[in-house]
Amino acid sequence: MFGKISIIGCGLIGSSILRATQEKKLASKISIYDKSNKVIEYLKKNFTADICSNVSQATKDADLTIICTPLSSYKEILLSIKSTLKEGSILTDTGSAKKEVNKIVNNLGLKNISWIASHPIAGTEYSGPSAGFSSLFKNRWCILSTDNQVAKDKIENLEKFWSKLGSKVKIMSFEDHDYVLSLTSHLPHAVAYSIVRTAINNEEKFKNDVIQYSAGGLRDFTRIAASDPLMWKDIFFDNSENILKVLDNYSKNLDEIKSAIKNKDSKKLLEIFSSTKKVRKEIIEAGQDTEKPDFGRK
Amino acid sequence: MFGKISIIGCGLIGSSILRATQEKKLASKISIYDKSNKVIEYLKKNFTADICSNVSQATKDADLTIICTPLSSYKEILLSIKSTLKEGSILTDTGSAKKEVNKIVNNLGLKNISWIASHPIAGTEYSGPSAGFSSLFKNRWCILSTDNQVAKDKIENLEKFWSKLGSKVKIMSFEDHDYVLSLTSHLPHAVAYSIVRTAINNEEKFKNDVIQYSAGGLRDFTRIAASDPLMWKDIFFDNSENILKVLDNYSKNLDEIKSAIKNKDSKKLLEIFSSTKKVRKEIIEAGQDTEKPDFGRK
Repeated sequence: MFGKISIIGCGLIGSSILRATQEKKLASKISIYDKSNKVIEYLKKNFTADICSNVSQATKDADLTIICTPLSSYKEILLSIKSTLKEGSILTDTGSAKKEVNKIVNNLGLKNISWIASHPIAGTEYSGPSAGFSSLFKNRWCILSTDNQVAKDKIENLEKFWSKLGSKVKIMSFEDHDYVLSLTSHLPHAVAYSIVRTAINNEEKFKNDVIQYSAGGLRDFTRIAASDPLMWKDIFFDNSENILKVLDNYSKNLDEIKSAIKNKDSKKLLEIFSSTKKVRKEIIEAGQDTEKPDFGRK
Repeated sequence: MFGKISIIGCGLIGSSILRATQEKKLASKISIYDKSNKVIEYLKKNFTADICSNVSQATKDADLTIICTPLSSYKEILLSIKSTLKEGSILTDTGSAKKEVNKIVNNLGLKNISWIASHPIAGTEYSGPSAGFSSLFKNRWCILSTDNQVAKDKIENLEKFWSKLGSKVKIMSFEDHDYVLSLTSHLPHAVAYSIVRTAINNEEKFKNDVIQYSAGGLRDFTRIAASDPLMWKDIFFDNSENILKVLDNYSKNLDEIKSAIKNKDSKKLLEIFSSTKKVRKEIIEAGQDTEKPDFGRK
């Protein structure tokens, strides 16, 4: 499908792309770069690919370059690869926030490079190259964002690439992406980190109890709160405007529950609790979660 | 194990106890009461048991009576069965909050009845008798709370009963139970309801997007926010003191994240996000969740 694909950063996402690309034979050559020696060692042991310790060497002659590193590393990487990116090639990424990244790329003044941002809505609570697997993107959405001046055939090429990895592709503006994801992903992470912190910052006496009796609800939140800290710090900074806005709305909703409890307002509390029941059904119907009780946990 | 067991209320929990008790042959007779005609019909179709439309008839001669209804119905039920409870029998329940219920029972002045509260930390996001299954309590904790004057052999009898259903049993004071559960279960529910409400109360334009891209985090919360509204309204009222206290602590933790985002305080945000990673591991080691990525969801 592509001559050479270059993967910059080989953690959970990068290594899953590597696995899937090799499995589906989507490139005649794959070059990988990672700044960590430990990752490089792991890759050499487990993959037959061109493994580079120099980032511009990895992107040289690549028809598709995919940045799979935390958002805060983009600037440095882009400055390093800027002059070696192949004319006519596609540059993409896999980051969870888009508006700020788009500014950085635009400021580079890249010539004859098609910048199309990608966000595969896929991942697990684990990180690093050993956590990746080739079916990670199967039946998951991948959102592409780009400017009007990018050629249609380039967008179609990238769409095809993600489709071959098993994803369903949707095009969205950089701005809409960041707002929608602040609701569906960034807010849930802020909340999960806060709730787990509240539960663990307690008297020593209750420390074990909190772990033992977590099946009453808490354990569902600990999965998300186990996500990669560095990656999430970057997302919160890059999309801070949207996140602070939805956090304010969220606090208002929480205050409504608090007031209803304080005032013993039965009707209000029932109304609140009933309003959220329908969404799960819609998410299951949209194929975004399992209908099995308890996520099918055994 | 028991002569007659009486189950009052036959939804997810009551019907799971019924199924497990029959499967394990833990009683020579089982009587069931439910106030809903629909539930009674379902039970008659699916079970061979003594199905009563009169609650005091169901508890008559029972050696163990288990209340499995929402907390707000306890008072009425207890007043109805008070005079028919068998001398020397055990009275228990399955509710998620204990302190208020204990006051109600104490005010009844029951004579020669052993009141021992039970809370099986088990359940799913589904409700009603068709959602129950006999292995619901397997490897889950069941917390018992009682007063000093209750005879040891009665407590041991009830412990044995839950053990036979597959549970691990722990004794805890009514007060500690309500505080620990406010952290591990009631707070997560308040938060889940708020976050799902924030995500769905949005411009019409983004309605479908929120459903489609929920795999980025939101979908984990919708499971809990699909729980039975009436049951949860009752829990929030009964345990309001603890819940309002932990909600205040929670809001402080959330404000800390908000400030760190506003001030671009990298160090602080990394510290917060790193502190919550360890808990998941501890929960998995304690056998309270699966270590499979994404809860093993496929």
